[in-house]
Amino acid sequence: MVKGKIVVVGAGVIGLSVAWRAMNSGWRTLVVDPQPCSGASWVAGGMLAPTTEAWPGEEPLLELGEASLRAWPEFAAELGDVGLRREGTVVAAFDSADADQLVILAEHLASIGRKVDRLTGPELRRMEPTLSTSVRSGLSVPGDLAVDNRKLLEVLRSKAEFLHAEVKAVRRGAVELEDSTVDCDAVVVAAGAWSRNLHPRLNSLIRPVKGEILRLKPGRGALPLGRTIRALVESRPVYLVPRDTGEVVLGATQYEAGYDTEVAVKGVRDLLLDAERVVPGISEYILVESAAGVRASSLDNLPVIDWLEPGVLVASGHHRNGLLLAPITADTVVALLNGEPIPEAALAARLESRG
Amino acid sequence: MVKGKIVVVGAGVIGLSVAWRAMNSGWRTLVVDPQPCSGASWVAGGMLAPTTEAWPGEEPLLELGEASLRAWPEFAAELGDVGLRREGTVVAAFDSADADQLVILAEHLASIGRKVDRLTGPELRRMEPTLSTSVRSGLSVPGDLAVDNRKLLEVLRSKAEFLHAEVKAVRRGAVELEDSTVDCDAVVVAAGAWSRNLHPRLNSLIRPVKGEILRLKPGRGALPLGRTIRALVESRPVYLVPRDTGEVVLGATQYEAGYDTEVAVKGVRDLLLDAERVVPGISEYILVESAAGVRASSLDNLPVIDWLEPGVLVASGHHRNGLLLAPITADTVVALLNGEPIPEAALAARLESRG
Repeated sequence: MVKGKIVVVGAGVIGLSVAWRAMNSGWRTLVVDPQPCSGASWVAGGMLAPTTEAWPGEEPLLELGEASLRAWPEFAAELGDVGLRREGTVVAAFDSADADQLVILAEHLASIGRKVDRLTGPELRRMEPTLSTSVRSGLSVPGDLAVDNRKLLEVLRSKAEFLHAEVKAVRRGAVELEDSTVDCDAVVVAAGAWSRNLHPRLNSLIRPVKGEILRLKPGRGALPLGRTIRALVESRPVYLVPRDTGEVVLGATQYEAGYDTEVAVKGVRDLLLDAERVVPGISEYILVESAAGVRASSLDNLPVIDWLEPGVLVASGHHRNGLLLAPITADTVVALLNGEPIPEAALAARLESRG
Repeated sequence: MVKGKIVVVGAGVIGLSVAWRAMNSGWRTLVVDPQPCSGASWVAGGMLAPTTEAWPGEEPLLELGEASLRAWPEFAAELGDVGLRREGTVVAAFDSADADQLVILAEHLASIGRKVDRLTGPELRRMEPTLSTSVRSGLSVPGDLAVDNRKLLEVLRSKAEFLHAEVKAVRRGAVELEDSTVDCDAVVVAAGAWSRNLHPRLNSLIRPVKGEILRLKPGRGALPLGRTIRALVESRPVYLVPRDTGEVVLGATQYEAGYDTEVAVKGVRDLLLDAERVVPGISEYILVESAAGVRASSLDNLPVIDWLEPGVLVASGHHRNGLLLAPITADTVVALLNGEPIPEAALAARLESRG
């Protein structure tokens, strides 16, 4: 049964997940993007780790992330091999202020009923022998997952139909290109940080935040990482996410730098130094790629998933959580399109829930 | 007047310079390389700076380099725009041991009749304001040049005829490919570090040395460099060579790592940290490229430019000096081909001058 035609603007993980789920739900879908799979999702780490991102006051984001994490195994299984890893996350503290920060995080999580394991340095190193003996203490989160973002994007890409074009604006029943218009029954704006320019209501909600990552692979004799490692090094967050190939994604800087996607010397320097302090063996790795992406940040770190006006939906503002939130975002958008109730956890992502 | 046909094996700066000069001298030339302009010359800094490479016991190399430096302005002028820069070099010492090293170099140079200017930190910074206030002292070498290695290679490439193939061996009157043979009157082996596998006499003379460089460009508000900066930072040599575009080539690590051309994390880390200690503003630059090349090192740091047997010439072993020594190497090879006397300074590069 074909329900009508939707156009999804943006071929990142959100747009492609929405398109795939909508197609499975009976919608004809077209994805419009001048360069599919080239944005923030392509340079992501692929951590599916809501707990260690938790912060007092951001409980709705934690609940949204947890709901999406629960949906991930089935989402991945339907897609095939997307490099899903189940070893969990360790979080390491470098200096005593970093250790204090992790205690605050653990206590906050306990106070809202989430348990994480607090570990000493030696306990952490028994779990993850690549960690430096300078690591003081940390946390273990066994339930976290990680996904190979590029494998995932390639699989999702193979399921979509594309129009390679830049979108100038969207409105009810139409997507406007440079010198033509694509008609449809509904538009889904999923263009990440570029969403803000496509509809007047998004301009004040979404802003670009630059992030840099490095992709490394083990050199001769380098030890492979056993699981995702997050760390605080003199208050700077850093993560190392291993892939099945032995590659490691090392991230991520954060700057307010507009739509700039150049890789700064200072970003590379900080990432390499911080990573080496947490995992000394990283110096024996090979630098394969350095890249920057522009994430879509919202005012409250929650994504915006809602109708902007009749016939125009938005799914943007996922910040560093696009990969994690892809399943629940897709489910929510499809429910909105079908006129069905959206997942409970996604109520906080509606426009009317904001301020 | 056509004198005969030569085949040049290797399309780096040496092979292409030889081919160009030989053609101008009346030889038909063919350059054989599976991937022209992809080796050590492509990832070079482009410093034409023999003086600051000088070392006690290596006077013949200094004289060869000086002779080639004198030939450079005319060599460049004949080729057109190759980004030749004439601002000279400053050499900066970071700690007191580095400063002592530069005093030894300056005294050695004085003892063999070369004058370099010894400068205090403030004097150096007046010449080159991007230098750190931590730089203690240094040298100024106004006569040094620098060339845009990639511009140069592109110009030289446009003047040559190519056969894109891998050479298995060379012998009198023939170059052997995978499954065919190219006949000629003389062969010139100019395949850099790969030369050692092409003729039995080269195996013990040439060995590969890996070098890594980074290419940077100024970010918003970053200060451009005025001239080539060499430095010793806790005994590690580092150089920054500016291009007319504002780009900077930052180099170079040195490893004995066979023919490996992957970029090591520890190499990038050292280059960035050392550069930043000498030129703090480098942190405001953008990382454009990281690359590794394999240089052809000889036992005495002098290149080998001579007949290996009748009909087979070699011009290899230029180590870090391929760009600098290209003009005199080309002149020497052409003189050998023509049966004319070679430049006085190139006598040390003959096989029979070795030990």
